[in-house]
Amino acid sequence: MATILLLSGPNLNLLGEREPAVYGTTTLDELVAIASETAAKRGHDVEHMQSNHEGDLVDAIQGARGRCAAIVFNPGAFSHYAYALTDALATFDGVKVEVHLSNPHAREAWRHHSVISPVVDGIVTGFQAAGYRLAVDAAATLLEERTT
Amino acid sequence: MATILLLSGPNLNLLGEREPAVYGTTTLDELVAIASETAAKRGHDVEHMQSNHEGDLVDAIQGARGRCAAIVFNPGAFSHYAYALTDALATFDGVKVEVHLSNPHAREAWRHHSVISPVVDGIVTGFQAAGYRLAVDAAATLLEERTT
Amino acid sequence: MATILLLSGPNLNLLGEREPAVYGTTTLDELVAIASETAAKRGHDVEHMQSNHEGDLVDAIQGARGRCAAIVFNPGAFSHYAYALTDALATFDGVKVEVHLSNPHAREAWRHHSVISPVVDGIVTGFQAAGYRLAVDAAATLLEERTT
Amino acid sequence: MATILLLSGPNLNLLGEREPAVYGTTTLDELVAIASETAAKRGHDVEHMQSNHEGDLVDAIQGARGRCAAIVFNPGAFSHYAYALTDALATFDGVKVEVHLSNPHAREAWRHHSVISPVVDGIVTGFQAAGYRLAVDAAATLLEERTT
Amino acid sequence: MATILLLSGPNLNLLGEREPAVYGTTTLDELVAIASETAAKRGHDVEHMQSNHEGDLVDAIQGARGRCAAIVFNPGAFSHYAYALTDALATFDGVKVEVHLSNPHAREAWRHHSVISPVVDGIVTGFQAAGYRLAVDAAATLLEERTT
Amino acid sequence: MATILLLSGPNLNLLGEREPAVYGTTTLDELVAIASETAAKRGHDVEHMQSNHEGDLVDAIQGARGRCAAIVFNPGAFSHYAYALTDALATFDGVKVEVHLSNPHAREAWRHHSVISPVVDGIVTGFQAAGYRLAVDAAATLLEERTT
Amino acid sequence: MATILLLSGPNLNLLGEREPAVYGTTTLDELVAIASETAAKRGHDVEHMQSNHEGDLVDAIQGARGRCAAIVFNPGAFSHYAYALTDALATFDGVKVEVHLSNPHAREAWRHHSVISPVVDGIVTGFQAAGYRLAVDAAATLLEERTT
Amino acid sequence: MATILLLSGPNLNLLGEREPAVYGTTTLDELVAIASETAAKRGHDVEHMQSNHEGDLVDAIQGARGRCAAIVFNPGAFSHYAYALTDALATFDGVKVEVHLSNPHAREAWRHHSVISPVVDGIVTGFQAAGYRLAVDAAATLLEERTT
Amino acid sequence: MATILLLSGPNLNLLGEREPAVYGTTTLDELVAIASETAAKRGHDVEHMQSNHEGDLVDAIQGARGRCAAIVFNPGAFSHYAYALTDALATFDGVKVEVHLSNPHAREAWRHHSVISPVVDGIVTGFQAAGYRLAVDAAATLLEERTT
Amino acid sequence: MATILLLSGPNLNLLGEREPAVYGTTTLDELVAIASETAAKRGHDVEHMQSNHEGDLVDAIQGARGRCAAIVFNPGAFSHYAYALTDALATFDGVKVEVHLSNPHAREAWRHHSVISPVVDGIVTGFQAAGYRLAVDAAATLLEERTT
Amino acid sequence: MATILLLSGPNLNLLGEREPAVYGTTTLDELVAIASETAAKRGHDVEHMQSNHEGDLVDAIQGARGRCAAIVFNPGAFSHYAYALTDALATFDGVKVEVHLSNPHAREAWRHHSVISPVVDGIVTGFQAAGYRLAVDAAATLLEERTT
Amino acid sequence: MATILLLSGPNLNLLGEREPAVYGTTTLDELVAIASETAAKRGHDVEHMQSNHEGDLVDAIQGARGRCAAIVFNPGAFSHYAYALTDALATFDGVKVEVHLSNPHAREAWRHHSVISPVVDGIVTGFQAAGYRLAVDAAATLLEERTT
Repeated sequence: MATILLLSGPNLNLLGEREPAVYGTTTLDELVAIASETAAKRGHDVEHMQSNHEGDLVDAIQGARGRCAAIVFNPGAFSHYAYALTDALATFDGVKVEVHLSNPHAREAWRHHSVISPVVDGIVTGFQAAGYRLAVDAAATLLEERTT
Repeated sequence: MATILLLSGPNLNLLGEREPAVYGTTTLDELVAIASETAAKRGHDVEHMQSNHEGDLVDAIQGARGRCAAIVFNPGAFSHYAYALTDALATFDGVKVEVHLSNPHAREAWRHHSVISPVVDGIVTGFQAAGYRLAVDAAATLLEERTT
Repeated sequence: MATILLLSGPNLNLLGEREPAVYGTTTLDELVAIASETAAKRGHDVEHMQSNHEGDLVDAIQGARGRCAAIVFNPGAFSHYAYALTDALATFDGVKVEVHLSNPHAREAWRHHSVISPVVDGIVTGFQAAGYRLAVDAAATLLEERTT
Repeated sequence: MATILLLSGPNLNLLGEREPAVYGTTTLDELVAIASETAAKRGHDVEHMQSNHEGDLVDAIQGARGRCAAIVFNPGAFSHYAYALTDALATFDGVKVEVHLSNPHAREAWRHHSVISPVVDGIVTGFQAAGYRLAVDAAATLLEERTT
Repeated sequence: MATILLLSGPNLNLLGEREPAVYGTTTLDELVAIASETAAKRGHDVEHMQSNHEGDLVDAIQGARGRCAAIVFNPGAFSHYAYALTDALATFDGVKVEVHLSNPHAREAWRHHSVISPVVDGIVTGFQAAGYRLAVDAAATLLEERTT
Repeated sequence: MATILLLSGPNLNLLGEREPAVYGTTTLDELVAIASETAAKRGHDVEHMQSNHEGDLVDAIQGARGRCAAIVFNPGAFSHYAYALTDALATFDGVKVEVHLSNPHAREAWRHHSVISPVVDGIVTGFQAAGYRLAVDAAATLLEERTT
Repeated sequence: MATILLLSGPNLNLLGEREPAVYGTTTLDELVAIASETAAKRGHDVEHMQSNHEGDLVDAIQGARGRCAAIVFNPGAFSHYAYALTDALATFDGVKVEVHLSNPHAREAWRHHSVISPVVDGIVTGFQAAGYRLAVDAAATLLEERTT
Repeated sequence: MATILLLSGPNLNLLGEREPAVYGTTTLDELVAIASETAAKRGHDVEHMQSNHEGDLVDAIQGARGRCAAIVFNPGAFSHYAYALTDALATFDGVKVEVHLSNPHAREAWRHHSVISPVVDGIVTGFQAAGYRLAVDAAATLLEERTT
Repeated sequence: MATILLLSGPNLNLLGEREPAVYGTTTLDELVAIASETAAKRGHDVEHMQSNHEGDLVDAIQGARGRCAAIVFNPGAFSHYAYALTDALATFDGVKVEVHLSNPHAREAWRHHSVISPVVDGIVTGFQAAGYRLAVDAAATLLEERTT
Repeated sequence: MATILLLSGPNLNLLGEREPAVYGTTTLDELVAIASETAAKRGHDVEHMQSNHEGDLVDAIQGARGRCAAIVFNPGAFSHYAYALTDALATFDGVKVEVHLSNPHAREAWRHHSVISPVVDGIVTGFQAAGYRLAVDAAATLLEERTT
Repeated sequence: MATILLLSGPNLNLLGEREPAVYGTTTLDELVAIASETAAKRGHDVEHMQSNHEGDLVDAIQGARGRCAAIVFNPGAFSHYAYALTDALATFDGVKVEVHLSNPHAREAWRHHSVISPVVDGIVTGFQAAGYRLAVDAAATLLEERTT
Repeated sequence: MATILLLSGPNLNLLGEREPAVYGTTTLDELVAIASETAAKRGHDVEHMQSNHEGDLVDAIQGARGRCAAIVFNPGAFSHYAYALTDALATFDGVKVEVHLSNPHAREAWRHHSVISPVVDGIVTGFQAAGYRLAVDAAATLLEERTT
């Protein structure tokens, strides 16, 4: 059994009430529940942390080193400029999955570029709440592949 | 029960033998099997078509109108310039998922931009063979959400 | 009496049902009829060909060399990248008119640039079905000017 | 019966003598005659105004509001930078057609971009004198479509 | 009576002593006093918060949801890259005013672009201390307009 | 007592009837009244001039030299390219305030860049009619600061 | 004996009092005198015209066709965007010289590009008042070369 | 003895009659003969295929895997955008030579960039018909070097 | 004797274990020891602070005003976007040295631009652990030069 | 009496025989004679030096420091990239004039940018042989202005 | 019999020992021997010159005018910026072939653009030592074609 | 004991008298003395060479191969375009340090990019004369690390 760190970036604490046309009506707690449930089915544990502070997320990624097997990360708006997160993820040897609720490529131009994407294993975008199930599922699969 | 059209773009017929370090060792037949199996579990059918010809893929997308409920599409190198596919997908009302075996954002600069991404519902990249399972799973979920 | 080749690019076979707010409700058959009727009034013949395949359109342009006096071409999405069509048109000595149903300059940025425009005689965009009448009318006028 | 405002931008008063290889040998008066004749056949009236002054053209467009049903506009070099004309046209609710004698896309790079194109209904370029007939014809057709 | 949140970004705590030629000699406390006084005259309350931490400002904006009627925000250098603030402001339904002491357009090129400007109602720049009075005045006016 | 020149650029004479969703329903006369009233309260006079002609605005700015103490300028679409106005303003030593009714940064990309902004003291955008009151208020404050 | 049209663009009427550090202390009248004197020595006549209106300058260039042998033009800020002047100059067959008092390449970036330079015979920049003597001298020399 | 696949892209079937000033007067059949003769002298065989269809060329490259030792490819206009050919060539382990009859760097800007060049061993451009002899010669030499 | 503030940006706390091929095997504690020792030899004191939080670093720089004589700063990934640090450093009047362990110009493109470099006195990059000795040495030298 | 250094960059030794349509038929010796004669009339001396070596030109500029009063420089193709010449000229306190025989702005795009222009006093381009007379005349005038 | 000038740019004197993985193990002397031998078979002579000095290469190209029939040029790193060589080659009327040992398009981005390519007849890149044989062969063929 | 080659690029021979506000008042001889002294303390020898000729510097770098252990290089303005130096340095296996007296990132935009930086081990900029001591110190340290 491994621990999967589920990380949520800025403004994701408002999910459910924030622009539901874009982000859906599921709350962050519900998303965490979906992720945990998915992980549990695969024999894994989910640890969740949300922050509006880039530094807290860097700290959390560092703290996951040697302790968590995978990170599933929705960086929110930090996707587009927070290179300190890029560097932090590069120091983490485990499985790394980027997840977005909406499809950034169908939105404003500044959302089309992610500084996180080049350092993760895979990306899941646009499936709203279901994306969290898929991302954890993907992380679990990569974990299994690596341990065999 | 619905039909999901699984579309594979240029050079994907070589999967398994083509640059396995990048694309993995699974063959296209095996990927189709994975997709079919995943769809079957959700009560759906997979129809597969691969072509190195942009026009054939446009024809296939048009042919899916009113007949298929979803398209799961790995456009291969067509992702980066084939706007005729962009327009074709825009005429298809069903669920649309883009899938890539590798993570294009960790490769050459010209692979970072997809002309397909703005017109799909969601995107799954970087999970190799497992990505097909996840993409079909995602498509099935979106289908269920839309019919409820 | 001369033959005018009316060429229709990818996805134009769907006209009438495809995004009617953008492209109008006239079908491709109706557009061909409008073009033929306009040509007939000027003593010319229209030959029509539609394809979703860039190569077929290159073949058709080559086949028109020495046989047709003019080409009226709606390249659809191929307008924006299909340089093989640019080169093919450059080998055709007759009258060349580009036509678009919608006004690409009022749509997405990638539709603002046409690789076809630099090698045609004139361009007609934004008049929906009436554009086909105008384009054939224009071609006929240029034919008359060249033969006098 | 409606009034169509035919607007001619800077240097078009020199037509006939100015670079005939590019702009043809027809004079502006002859172009106005062509336009008037075309309009008359469709039961409309043409009012013409030429100016080398951007402000005069803004005034003319404003003056057409509520009085003219359509504007056929050859903005000349103002096409490429005169955003005050863009804004003026946006305040005019009638039919708007942009016309150029030559094909700007086959000329210098700075002529490829028009700040007028995004706010008109349709565009006719490259047909020399015949373009005025086609543009008025197009305007008349759009007028008929809107009133039916 | 409504509460207006006055938010000050990084380095603004140094006002009065920091580059007075650029930012003037008024201290942040004095600016808050000006803002409060202006608000009071309009029957409103000012709540002030300054932080050098992007995350704190995101928290503050979120905390203002449903509690404050307006935000007057001087984002300082965060104007130019802190998209997490862009997203946070987008979740706030009240009146939003951006204020800068200096005129960024008369300074270094990197100060000309603000990621905050597209999501606010209005902007006041270049008036030094008086800008705070004007910004609060503007916010009060917009509040009144919206409630009538 | 000083004279403040209120300058209005192209198409602003249509205010009230032009795109009210963007520019509000206040007419230019009403805006001038607001500005005059505001100035009067501060002991100043407003002189107004509107033109669709760039040259007239250059003339007006030059004519204000040595006669007016401040210019409050809404350059309309001239903001984006009319460098002759930039140069004219640079020759005026008094207070200079740029004002826009709408927030250009929330509109088309070509409205994001102003060639006027680098040569004014301050900018007020997005507050509709109230912006004129604020801009005159700001100009009056700067005048007072300079004379003390 | 030939007539040389000396054309002065926007804000040049202020020479002598406008930013003397940049443009020198010579007035426009003095510059015209210098030009006339230089021309007289070569047996030519100078006709001068200054305007802040782009359209007036277009009119003047058109009016010089067939009447003047050369144009010496200081386009001021119109250098950087007024393509209507580019087109007007292209219709003038005589000698064309561009002159600037200051050296635009040593100033702001937007002054480095001139839309006038590609259509003139030669350019003289940076010599303040002496530049007018040199430009007229150059024009006279080109006239002599062309008539021999 | 090895087989060298000679591949010709779009519009090359017209060689001899198409723009002879640019492409020379040699026909494609004559070029194939030159290539075959050159190969024969080195003990190799040439197999030729021309297509205006990108997909056919992808198929041909795939079909050469494990059967041909080298590909000599004139991609014509596909050079500039057909990334599916880039990917196809990357799957071919043998010798790869790009050949162009004209020198693209001395032509239009869009011909300066080739998406094929980064994945071939060497390039021969600008020598007209002789280029085919040189390209086959080069391929034969690389084959010999690799087998020794 | 003066105090030199040694500031370390995000992820530098992991030095020694993080990508040793890039950053070397020296730990941050060892780097601080090197810096302290170097400073001591010059009669100065080193105070060290590391943070993954941009705001903490802004606070630290502000706190050094009037208390520390120099700042030696390794901004890590903040180098590339954290303009709040640029502004904070601009308010510090003492000696400012930027130091990087690796040579950013030999790495990914996004590491080539530093928003910190324009506001420091000097820069030392690429010398791994020795760079800290050199940077403190440089700071001490600048301190001596300024006090003489 | 002062010495004016006339400097000629690469390939100018071929003048007279090199592309006469572009550069005229005057030889470099004749240009030097024109320059010398012009200088003599103003009481100055011309010293000439031509080199195809950037370093020689840097040496010559350095050697002119304190010995020559002015440099008239035709940098030829070095205009577009040789920043070592930019720096060398910046160390020369005397009068600096850049001269070109042709008008670079009417030629290839890469000739539009000069790295020399920002550091000279004035520029004379496009007047062929007469340009040398004008440039020396300009230099002499600037010398006189500076000594009075 | 004609003389072919073989020109080698900077750092090519180190061939054989410099980065053999990129440039092969053949020395420059061996390349010259290959070129001479190839030329001899076609009845021509090779004259070789290598220099690390751009000026020497300009001199050599000029010296070849009227004396050599062809230039085969490996400009090394000068390919990417040395416009003085571009101009020099433009003055040489004979056959001009550019040759590179490696394939620059498969290397760093700055190697993709050559300022030499637009002024040569043809280009041979990527064939290591064999490229010299091919380039001389190509030059000989062009010489024969031009003399027949 | 090893030899360190100290290389100085164009215009550095003027140090001490050239723009002292930017480059300090130390002469090149004094800088060489500083470097030699620093090297001597570490048991090394300094050999110095200055040139305004790019080719001489390429020769010098080549001549250092196998004879010098390190190069300390101030490329001056060659930093920004001289790719021949980039290539030459790439062939030198020893320690490579780039040094600049001023901080190029605080100066003109064209000084921000160095084509030398990607191929050196480390960089020291902005410390004036002290930079030479630091650069030699750094080189010596890298030498020691490599030999242990």
